[in-house]
This record gives sequence, structure tokens and C-alpha cells, in this order.
Amino acid sequence: MRFRLTPVDTTFYDLFAKQAGYLVEGARLLAEMLAESNDRAATAQLMKDAEHRCDEATHEIIRRVNSTFVTPFDREDIYRLAAGLDDVMDYMEAAVESVSLYDLLSLPEGIEEQVEVLQRAADLTAQAMPRLRTMHDLEEYWIEVNRLENLGDQIHRRMLAKLFSGAYDALTVLKLKDVVEQLEYAVDSFERVANTVEQIAVKES
Amino acid sequence: MRFRLTPVDTTFYDLFAKQAGYLVEGARLLAEMLAESNDRAATAQLMKDAEHRCDEATHEIIRRVNSTFVTPFDREDIYRLAAGLDDVMDYMEAAVESVSLYDLLSLPEGIEEQVEVLQRAADLTAQAMPRLRTMHDLEEYWIEVNRLENLGDQIHRRMLAKLFSGAYDALTVLKLKDVVEQLEYAVDSFERVANTVEQIAVKES
Amino acid sequence: MRFRLTPVDTTFYDLFAKQAGYLVEGARLLAEMLAESNDRAATAQLMKDAEHRCDEATHEIIRRVNSTFVTPFDREDIYRLAAGLDDVMDYMEAAVESVSLYDLLSLPEGIEEQVEVLQRAADLTAQAMPRLRTMHDLEEYWIEVNRLENLGDQIHRRMLAKLFSGAYDALTVLKLKDVVEQLEYAVDSFERVANTVEQIAVKES
Repeated sequence: MRFRLTPVDTTFYDLFAKQAGYLVEGARLLAEMLAESNDRAATAQLMKDAEHRCDEATHEIIRRVNSTFVTPFDREDIYRLAAGLDDVMDYMEAAVESVSLYDLLSLPEGIEEQVEVLQRAADLTAQAMPRLRTMHDLEEYWIEVNRLENLGDQIHRRMLAKLFSGAYDALTVLKLKDVVEQLEYAVDSFERVANTVEQIAVKES
Repeated sequence: MRFRLTPVDTTFYDLFAKQAGYLVEGARLLAEMLAESNDRAATAQLMKDAEHRCDEATHEIIRRVNSTFVTPFDREDIYRLAAGLDDVMDYMEAAVESVSLYDLLSLPEGIEEQVEVLQRAADLTAQAMPRLRTMHDLEEYWIEVNRLENLGDQIHRRMLAKLFSGAYDALTVLKLKDVVEQLEYAVDSFERVANTVEQIAVKES
Repeated sequence: MRFRLTPVDTTFYDLFAKQAGYLVEGARLLAEMLAESNDRAATAQLMKDAEHRCDEATHEIIRRVNSTFVTPFDREDIYRLAAGLDDVMDYMEAAVESVSLYDLLSLPEGIEEQVEVLQRAADLTAQAMPRLRTMHDLEEYWIEVNRLENLGDQIHRRMLAKLFSGAYDALTVLKLKDVVEQLEYAVDSFERVANTVEQIAVKES
């Protein structure tokens, strides 16, 4: 427990929660995109909007971390946390963009499991951000996100094996691999965010 | 404004300007490579030389940042800035190397726009480095590089759509995608450099 | 030379040596995988075990760096060193996993040179870790690893040229490129580890 004589700027917690909120929205848009009836151009536009707003929240954090005298935890950690959350958004947006760009009519089996992992990771992250204030009850969160990343890794590898099994021509493999990889990177970024939270929590305890 | 009792080692500004100078040269070599009459082996060699000299400047900065008592700004930021500039060089060199390695006779339409973005970003970066001394008039620079990165992203996505449109066989797509991606990574690295400069400037103001 | 009044936690040296030990084992498993008589499923399982144990050592370092009062060198550097060693392991494991996943019966010529580079880099790294205690005789190590990375880069580029020479169909190129790239990333990560050691040594000298 650290004691401080200067009031700490607590806006950071709200901004992290805001970023995480956009990730929940992004994961929901990914799930919508999988439905056959989905209007992909519309979903891609909504995703772009969410990505843009997440970007603004990230820049607001960076500006604030550099101009605030007393931050709630290490500047380097605040920066790493904001950048990690922003990475997740970028990868989710890139996946949707690729689907729309390549005009992919059918997506490979297993992608719905990847998206489910992302939705759960986004929910857990959004629930964890407000708990940074007290640093209580965060362990469960980072353990579960690490578990989800392992699960995501297995799903990803199974999908790659299927993609290369001979059922698709090489160009289609290239396109689908792009989409599937962006989703895998998004899951990885959720884990990096959780690892950053773990580091912050251990330091502060 | 910080006051200091120990003289600050100002060689860093010269070394950053040196690195940025190599990036201007690298972007110019990229533009030359696009000309049909270009001797690619010769261009690849000049690029390799520029990359090598940029590498030496980077190592000089790293050595200096770790052995200097008072640095003009945070060690971590100096390190990040030098590494970011070096990344741009590496990606530009890798693009030229791939063109030469894969013996690519024709390059996809749109690549000249990517290279133009890189040339403008390199020029802006080279002009901004000396301004780190006073920290004045830097905002325009990072705003414009962020705008260029957005533009580069759009060009890149349009090129990917064209690459996958069916006009090329899969092997050619793989080769061209490699080149186009290296250029996109170079643009991204310019943005990361600009973001680092923004962070440094906000801290010092 | 820094003087300290509080005893420094020296467990870090043992943990770095432990991580490096797993890298030596991983590089050996890679070499075994190249033998025609190799039982790949068995090698993949042994690699997964090594990766898992390296992961545990990494987490132990992260936990310790955040809860220890006086660390032997900067927290940020300890973190970077542990993460770098872990990256090498992840890439080596991913290469073996891809070979097994894609059911690759023959591997491209040149891969044995890549693996040799990895074995030498792993040995040098394992020998260097205990020398972090005294910071003596480390220069040779980082110079040699930088040389190995250059060599690895040349081997990698020669392999890419061969992969794209027309001897393989596009799907096979994609699979082999995945394996070869993971090995190249592993070599790159060894260089990043060496650069981190250089930074630490220069700061402490």
C-alpha cells in the first residue's frame, strides 16, 4: 500500500474502461459478421467507428500520462496497458476489414470458436478494468485470460491444419489465413493486457 | 521546462538526424527501384550500405544512452526513438531485398503511391529531428505522419484487394504480398516514431 | 560500479540460466527433428514440455521482479531479458508444431544450417547468463550472436529464394515458409536478448 500526498488523477481508470468497452462492442460485431444474413459493409463501417473511438481514448491516455504529475501507477505500465488494449481493437478491425476486402463468402469452420474466445476475453477485461482502482480480485481475471489464450491457440492450430488439408486452393488459403491470424493476434493481445495487469497488481501489493 | 546543473550530452540530436538522413536516402532508393530502367542489384547494394550505416548510428545511440550521465530526455524514450528509426530502415531494405531475391520483373500498381508516402514521411521526420532540441513546432509533424499512415493503410488495403482479385497466380501473390507488406510496416514504423516524439514533447512541455 | 546497502536478490541469475537451459534443449530437439528416422509426434511433445517449463521460469521472474525490493539491475531490463528468452522458446516450439501440424515429410535444404545457428546461439546464451553476476567477458558473446544473426539472415533469404524458385507448389511454399520464418524469428530473438545484455552491461560498467 502506497501513501500519497498529492491527489492522483483517477481519470485513467475510466479511460481504460472506455477502451475495454469498445473491445466488447468489437467482439460483438465479429460475432454478428459470422451470421449468414449479415450486411458486411455495414458491420465493417461500425467496426471502423469503434476502432476510431478506441484510438481517441488511447491518445487521450497517452496525452494524460505525459502531462499528469502523479499517476495511479507507473507511466510505463499505463502506456503498455493502453497500447495493449488498442492492439486488440486494431486486430479485430483488421479481421473484419479482410473479410470485406477479400469478399469472403464463406468462413472456415472453427472461426466461431475463435470469436467466442474473443467475446469472453473482452467481457472479462471490461469487468477487470474498474477493479484496477482497488487492485482487488484481479488474479482470477488474468488466470482465466491466460487459459483462454491457450484455448485460442489450440483452435487456431486446428484451423491451420484444416486450411492446409487440401480442401482449399492456395489463394483461398492465403485469404482465410489472413483473417484467422488477425483473430489469433487479437487473442494474444488480450493475454498481453492481462500480463500487464498482473505486473501492475504485483507491484502495488 | 526542466533546469539542469549538469551539461546535457547533445550528440543525440545529431545521431537522430543522421538516422533520419539514411531514411531519406532509403526512400529515394525505393523510388529509383520502381523505374523500369533500374539496375536492381546496384540499388539493393546501395540500400544494404544505407541500412548498415543506419545500424551503426543506432548502436552508437544505444552505447551512448547507457554510458551518459545526463541525457536530454528519458533513456527509455531515446532507446525507443532510435529503435523505431532503425525499424523503418530495416523494412525498406527488406522490401528492396525481396524484389531482388524473387526476381520480380513487374511490381503491382499502387506501389508508387506507397513509396511516395514513405518519401514524404522520411522528409518530415528528417526535418523534425533537429527540432527536438527546442521541442518547438513538432505537433504539425506528428499529425501529418499520422495522416500519412492512414493514407498508407488505405493504399495497402486497396493493393491487397487487387492482388487477390484473381489477376495473379498464388506464388506471385505471395511474392508481391511480401514486398507490399514490408513497405506497409515501414509506414507503420514512421508512425510509431512520430508517436514517440509526441510523447517526448508532451513530457518536456 | 554501484554500492548497495540492501542485499540483492540473486535468484534472477539462476532463473535466466534456467531459461537458457531450456533453449539449449529446444535447439537440440530441432536438430533431432531433422533426422529422417525422427518420431515427430514425440519430439513435438518434448518441445511442448520444454516450452511449458520455460514459461514457468519466465512467470517466476516476472513475479519476483515485481515483488523484490532491490533487483540486480533495472526492472525494465530484467523484464525485457526474460521476455526475450521466452520469445526464442515460443518460436522454436511453433516451428516444431508447424512441421507436425502440416505433416511435412521433407524439409527444405538449408534448414539444417538455420538449426545449427540456433544451437550455437543457444549454447553461447547459456554460457553468458551466469556471467551476468560479474558482468565480465560478455562482449564476445553479444558480438558473436550479432554475427550469427547476420549469418541466419543470409541463410533465410537464400531459402526463400529457393522456396519461390518454382520447385514447389504454392500450398507447400506456404507451409514451408511458415516453418522457416519461425526459425528466423527465433534467431532474431536471440539477437534481441544479446542486445539487452549489452545494454545492461554498459549501464553497469
